[in-house]
Amino acid sequence: MTKPIPARVAAFHVNGKDRFGVVSDAGVVDLTDKVAFGSLKQVIEAGALADLLTAVEGQPADFTEAEITYLIPIADPEKLICIGVNFPDRNAEYKDGQAAPGRPSMFIRFPRSFVGHGVNLVRPPESEQLDYEGEVTIVIGKGGRRIAREDAYDHIAALTLCNEGTIRDWVRHAKFNVTQGKNWDNSGAIGPWLVPFTDAAQLDDIALETRVNGEVRQKDRTGRMMYDFRYIVNYVSTFTTLVPGDVIVCGTPTGAGARFDPPIWLKPGDVIEVEAEGIGILRNGVEDEA
Amino acid sequence: MTKPIPARVAAFHVNGKDRFGVVSDAGVVDLTDKVAFGSLKQVIEAGALADLLTAVEGQPADFTEAEITYLIPIADPEKLICIGVNFPDRNAEYKDGQAAPGRPSMFIRFPRSFVGHGVNLVRPPESEQLDYEGEVTIVIGKGGRRIAREDAYDHIAALTLCNEGTIRDWVRHAKFNVTQGKNWDNSGAIGPWLVPFTDAAQLDDIALETRVNGEVRQKDRTGRMMYDFRYIVNYVSTFTTLVPGDVIVCGTPTGAGARFDPPIWLKPGDVIEVEAEGIGILRNGVEDEA
Repeated sequence: MTKPIPARVAAFHVNGKDRFGVVSDAGVVDLTDKVAFGSLKQVIEAGALADLLTAVEGQPADFTEAEITYLIPIADPEKLICIGVNFPDRNAEYKDGQAAPGRPSMFIRFPRSFVGHGVNLVRPPESEQLDYEGEVTIVIGKGGRRIAREDAYDHIAALTLCNEGTIRDWVRHAKFNVTQGKNWDNSGAIGPWLVPFTDAAQLDDIALETRVNGEVRQKDRTGRMMYDFRYIVNYVSTFTTLVPGDVIVCGTPTGAGARFDPPIWLKPGDVIEVEAEGIGILRNGVEDEA
Repeated sequence: MTKPIPARVAAFHVNGKDRFGVVSDAGVVDLTDKVAFGSLKQVIEAGALADLLTAVEGQPADFTEAEITYLIPIADPEKLICIGVNFPDRNAEYKDGQAAPGRPSMFIRFPRSFVGHGVNLVRPPESEQLDYEGEVTIVIGKGGRRIAREDAYDHIAALTLCNEGTIRDWVRHAKFNVTQGKNWDNSGAIGPWLVPFTDAAQLDDIALETRVNGEVRQKDRTGRMMYDFRYIVNYVSTFTTLVPGDVIVCGTPTGAGARFDPPIWLKPGDVIEVEAEGIGILRNGVEDEA
């Protein structure tokens, strides 16, 4: 995975305040007071991600990366939708004898179920079954309803990554729906940053990998997704109007901890890395809830 | 259902602006510029619903009810959670031979899937299967995590009603989850208003009824709910921190249109009324999407 990462726009917390700016190898430039937007969502609503990259030119770094705490890039999206069962063999993992469905399964998560890059995922006292799922994530730029597949990429503003952390036994608490297993506070992560989306090659067939303590657990390519990014934008926008800042988490490859026999759950001290070509590495530890 | 409705706090649109105030038989008092809050969510965050009722005393009506268009009471809750399969016989309606689950099924809806009282539900061209579900709905006042059942009522600020309108064939598009069938733009309704919650008798065992064109289709009492309001607040707050303004739609009795043989779907011109003792009547028509 040596594809270089172009610009990285991040939300972060520093000196007691929520800020946003641009991250590069030279450090973090805080743009919060230098542009006319209050948040990265507002930047995206204005179609101004590129303006941030212009604004940062020639600016010295305000902070080192070690001085900031990453936040999830869009703190309050109108929608945060997750696509389930979207890679080959993933349906077979369920071993329920059912054929693959004709349409993607999807569920919704609350932003408070996610932490930023570098922040520990939280394992609650109610369960030992904290599990990882590495996923490529898109952020909608231009809104719309019933967006045609061929136009879908025009509606994506940025890319990021998600560790769609799950409390596995609570996913099956009820007869229908995975809601409660997918919405534990601070059980997943989004980040580390937003990479502006300008070229189809950034999404069409990129490598996606999840490692736990350095060991590769999930590894696939987006070119193998059952429902590709264009399809997802088209399908979701059929029933709901997409708006700028909406976040869609696009599905995980085989190899989550639940699929091992016996299952391997995350535990305090583990480090999970979700990496995708051209987007970066989302890295998080694990801690027990205080 | 003759229990009187005490105060009614509503969000509405009039003269091109979103407003809120108090509705009574004498008309609508607009309080938007008379109190220090920008929305009903902010009122609830401040624990100030009762203050609105004080503020309205002696004020003349600004509008008749006919002059306003009702909005959903909380436009942008952090969470809007729906409980599925929560009345006796409702599980049996699925005829799938599965026992009732041990925990409530739940899913999440986006606010844009709802219209206010008096506004038509929208049937999209993609489906003829628009269906109704009448439900009692609670609005969280005091936030919290792992709220004990015995304390749950202290965390409820207000009550309202929901027609949890559903595009039935899209509920089963995928292998898991009902997300897409529950999130069509303008397919359901919330309202007509918020009734401040001050007495357990307002929730414990009230009559709930749904009528289509005057014909009773759903009729039950909240005292028969499989998972009562206290349980729901406790269970949901186990995995996610509830915050002021969160909306929980608490489940529908038997008798949705999908359960008839053959099913009876809603069509343009139909009028659906969801009524609960002490809360009011949520009334909506149906129109085809323009």
